[in-house]
Amino acid sequence: MDEEERPESSMPENVVLIGKKPPMNYVLAVVTQFNNGARSVKIRARGNAISRAVDVAEISRNRFITDIKVGNIAINSEELANEDGTKSKVSSIEITLAK
Amino acid sequence: MDEEERPESSMPENVVLIGKKPPMNYVLAVVTQFNNGARSVKIRARGNAISRAVDVAEISRNRFITDIKVGNIAINSEELANEDGTKSKVSSIEITLAK
Repeated sequence: MDEEERPESSMPENVVLIGKKPPMNYVLAVVTQFNNGARSVKIRARGNAISRAVDVAEISRNRFITDIKVGNIAINSEELANEDGTKSKVSSIEITLAK
Repeated sequence: MDEEERPESSMPENVVLIGKKPPMNYVLAVVTQFNNGARSVKIRARGNAISRAVDVAEISRNRFITDIKVGNIAINSEELANEDGTKSKVSSIEITLAK
Protein backbone atom coordinates (compact mmCIF):
# COMPACT_ATOMS: atom_id res chain seq x y z
CA MET A 1 0.00 0.00 0.00
CA ASP A 2 2.44 2.65 -1.13
CA GLU A 3 -0.23 5.35 -1.13
CA GLU A 4 0.03 5.30 2.68
CA GLU A 5 3.13 7.47 2.42
CA ARG A 6 1.81 10.01 -0.05
CA PRO A 7 0.60 13.41 1.12
CA GLU A 8 -3.09 14.15 0.73
CA SER A 9 -2.51 16.36 -2.29
CA SER A 10 -1.46 13.39 -4.40
CA MET A 11 -3.89 10.93 -2.81
CA PRO A 12 -5.07 8.43 -5.39
CA GLU A 13 -8.57 8.67 -6.75
CA ASN A 14 -10.02 5.75 -4.84
CA VAL A 15 -9.47 7.18 -1.36
CA VAL A 16 -12.08 9.26 0.45
CA LEU A 17 -10.72 11.16 3.43
CA ILE A 18 -13.41 11.90 6.01
CA GLY A 19 -13.50 15.38 7.55
CA LYS A 20 -16.11 17.42 9.38
CA LYS A 21 -18.71 17.78 6.65
CA PRO A 22 -22.05 15.93 6.82
CA PRO A 23 -21.75 12.21 6.03
CA MET A 24 -23.74 12.48 2.78
CA ASN A 25 -20.99 14.62 1.22
CA TYR A 26 -18.58 11.72 1.61
CA VAL A 27 -21.17 9.12 0.62
CA LEU A 28 -21.53 11.02 -2.66
CA ALA A 29 -17.75 10.85 -3.16
CA VAL A 30 -17.75 7.09 -2.55
CA VAL A 31 -20.72 6.47 -4.85
CA THR A 32 -19.18 8.63 -7.58
CA GLN A 33 -15.94 6.65 -7.50
CA PHE A 34 -17.74 3.33 -7.85
CA ASN A 35 -19.88 4.75 -10.64
CA ASN A 36 -16.70 5.89 -12.39
CA GLY A 37 -15.49 2.31 -12.48
CA ALA A 38 -13.54 1.91 -9.24
CA ARG A 39 -13.52 -1.69 -7.99
CA SER A 40 -12.64 -0.63 -4.46
CA VAL A 41 -12.68 2.56 -2.42
CA LYS A 42 -10.80 3.22 0.81
CA ILE A 43 -12.45 5.42 3.44
CA ARG A 44 -9.94 7.00 5.82
CA ALA A 45 -10.50 9.01 8.99
CA ARG A 46 -8.71 10.14 12.12
CA GLY A 47 -9.92 10.99 15.61
CA ASN A 48 -13.55 12.01 16.00
CA ALA A 49 -14.18 11.55 12.28
CA ILE A 50 -13.82 7.77 12.71
CA SER A 51 -17.50 7.42 13.68
CA ARG A 52 -18.46 9.34 10.55
CA ALA A 53 -16.29 7.05 8.42
CA VAL A 54 -18.29 4.05 9.64
CA ASP A 55 -21.54 5.92 8.91
CA VAL A 56 -20.31 6.70 5.37
CA ALA A 57 -19.41 3.04 4.74
CA GLU A 58 -22.75 1.81 6.09
CA ILE A 59 -24.87 4.36 4.22
CA SER A 60 -22.97 3.72 0.97
CA ARG A 61 -23.46 -0.03 1.03
CA ASN A 62 -26.96 -0.15 2.53
CA ARG A 63 -28.64 2.63 0.59
CA PHE A 64 -26.72 3.30 -2.60
CA ILE A 65 -24.45 0.57 -3.93
CA THR A 66 -25.79 -2.64 -2.52
CA ASP A 67 -23.33 -4.89 -4.37
CA ILE A 68 -20.31 -3.56 -2.48
CA LYS A 69 -18.94 -5.39 0.53
CA VAL A 70 -16.91 -4.26 3.49
CA GLY A 71 -13.40 -5.56 2.92
CA ASN A 72 -10.46 -5.03 5.22
CA ILE A 73 -10.81 -2.64 8.15
CA ALA A 74 -7.54 -1.45 9.68
CA ILE A 75 -7.05 0.69 12.77
CA ASN A 76 -3.85 2.44 13.70
CA SER A 77 -2.31 5.28 15.71
CA GLU A 78 -0.71 8.31 14.11
CA GLU A 79 1.45 10.94 15.73
CA LEU A 80 0.44 14.51 14.95
CA ALA A 81 2.51 17.61 15.73
CA ASN A 82 0.56 20.20 17.72
CA GLU A 83 0.90 23.92 17.14
CA ASP A 84 3.02 24.29 20.28
CA GLY A 85 5.52 21.70 19.03
CA THR A 86 4.35 18.83 21.22
CA LYS A 87 3.02 15.62 19.69
CA SER A 88 -0.30 13.89 20.14
CA LYS A 89 -1.31 10.38 19.21
CA VAL A 90 -4.53 10.06 17.31
CA SER A 91 -6.33 6.90 16.23
CA SER A 92 -7.11 6.27 12.59
CA ILE A 93 -9.22 3.87 10.57
CA GLU A 94 -9.19 2.69 6.97
CA ILE A 95 -12.29 0.90 5.69
CA THR A 96 -12.04 -0.75 2.27
CA LEU A 97 -15.27 -1.14 0.32
CA ALA A 98 -15.03 -3.46 -2.69
CA LYS A 99 -17.26 -4.83 -5.43
CA MET B 1 -21.44 -15.31 17.67
CA ASP B 2 -24.54 -16.08 19.67
CA GLU B 3 -23.80 -13.37 22.20
CA GLU B 4 -24.85 -10.87 19.51
CA GLU B 5 -28.46 -11.54 20.41
CA ARG B 6 -28.15 -11.28 24.16
CA PRO B 7 -29.26 -8.16 25.97
CA GLU B 8 -26.57 -6.10 27.67
CA SER B 9 -27.50 -7.35 31.11
CA SER B 10 -26.28 -10.86 30.31
CA MET B 11 -23.37 -9.76 28.17
CA PRO B 12 -20.48 -12.19 28.55
CA GLU B 13 -17.44 -11.16 30.52
CA ASN B 14 -15.15 -10.64 27.56
CA VAL B 15 -17.14 -7.78 26.01
CA VAL B 16 -16.47 -4.12 26.79
CA LEU B 17 -19.26 -1.79 25.73
CA ILE B 18 -18.00 1.74 25.07
CA GLY B 19 -20.07 4.63 26.40
CA LYS B 20 -19.39 8.28 27.15
CA LYS B 21 -16.80 7.93 29.89
CA PRO B 22 -13.14 8.79 29.29
CA PRO B 23 -11.28 6.18 27.21
CA MET B 24 -9.03 5.11 30.10
CA ASN B 25 -12.04 3.74 32.00
CA TYR B 26 -12.63 1.27 29.18
CA VAL B 27 -8.92 0.58 28.69
CA LEU B 28 -8.84 -0.49 32.34
CA ALA B 29 -11.76 -2.86 31.70
CA VAL B 30 -9.98 -4.39 28.69
CA VAL B 31 -6.67 -4.77 30.55
CA THR B 32 -8.43 -6.32 33.55
CA GLN B 33 -10.10 -8.94 31.40
CA PHE B 34 -6.84 -9.97 29.78
CA ASN B 35 -5.14 -10.06 33.18
CA ASN B 36 -7.96 -12.30 34.43
CA GLY B 37 -7.09 -14.83 31.75
CA ALA B 38 -9.26 -13.83 28.79
CA ARG B 39 -7.70 -14.84 25.47
CA SER B 40 -9.78 -12.32 23.56
CA VAL B 41 -11.86 -9.24 24.34
CA LYS B 42 -14.49 -7.65 22.12
CA ILE B 43 -14.87 -3.86 22.19
CA ARG B 44 -18.30 -2.70 21.04
CA ALA B 45 -19.62 0.78 20.36
CA ARG B 46 -22.41 2.60 18.56
CA GLY B 47 -22.65 6.05 17.01
CA ASN B 48 -20.26 8.70 18.27
CA ALA B 49 -18.65 6.24 20.69
CA ILE B 50 -17.10 4.40 17.71
CA SER B 51 -14.11 6.77 17.65
CA ARG B 52 -13.58 6.12 21.35
CA ALA B 53 -13.70 2.36 20.75
CA VAL B 54 -10.79 2.67 18.31
CA ASP B 55 -8.91 4.80 20.87
CA VAL B 56 -9.49 2.15 23.54
CA ALA B 57 -8.22 -0.63 21.28
CA GLU B 58 -5.13 1.37 20.27
CA ILE B 59 -4.26 2.49 23.80
CA SER B 60 -4.75 -1.04 25.17
CA ARG B 61 -2.43 -2.67 22.66
CA ASN B 62 0.17 0.07 22.37
CA ARG B 63 0.58 1.05 26.00
CA PHE B 64 -0.62 -1.78 28.21
CA ILE B 65 -0.77 -5.26 26.73
CA THR B 66 1.67 -5.26 23.88
CA ASP B 67 1.21 -8.96 23.06
CA ILE B 68 -2.40 -8.53 21.95
CA LYS B 69 -3.30 -8.13 18.30
CA VAL B 70 -6.26 -6.56 16.56
CA GLY B 71 -8.35 -9.42 15.23
CA ASN B 72 -11.59 -9.07 13.34
CA ILE B 73 -13.20 -5.64 13.03
CA ALA B 74 -16.85 -5.67 12.04
CA ILE B 75 -19.08 -2.70 11.25
CA ASN B 76 -22.84 -2.81 11.08
CA SER B 77 -26.03 -0.75 11.26
CA GLU B 78 -28.53 -1.11 14.08
CA GLU B 79 -32.05 0.24 14.27
CA LEU B 80 -32.87 2.07 17.47
CA ALA B 81 -36.35 3.14 18.59
CA ASN B 82 -36.53 6.83 19.42
CA GLU B 83 -38.58 8.16 22.31
CA ASP B 84 -41.26 9.41 19.89
CA GLY B 85 -41.69 5.93 18.42
CA THR B 86 -39.77 6.57 15.21
CA LYS B 87 -36.68 4.56 14.38
CA SER B 88 -33.15 5.69 13.63
CA LYS B 89 -30.29 3.76 12.11
CA VAL B 90 -27.03 3.95 13.95
CA SER B 91 -23.67 2.51 12.95
CA SER B 92 -21.85 0.10 15.22
CA ILE B 93 -18.39 -1.44 15.47
CA GLU B 94 -16.99 -4.53 17.12
CA ILE B 95 -13.22 -4.75 17.49
CA THR B 96 -11.79 -8.07 18.66
CA LEU B 97 -8.47 -7.96 20.50
CA ALA B 98 -6.77 -11.33 20.93
CA LYS B 99 -3.58 -12.78 22.41
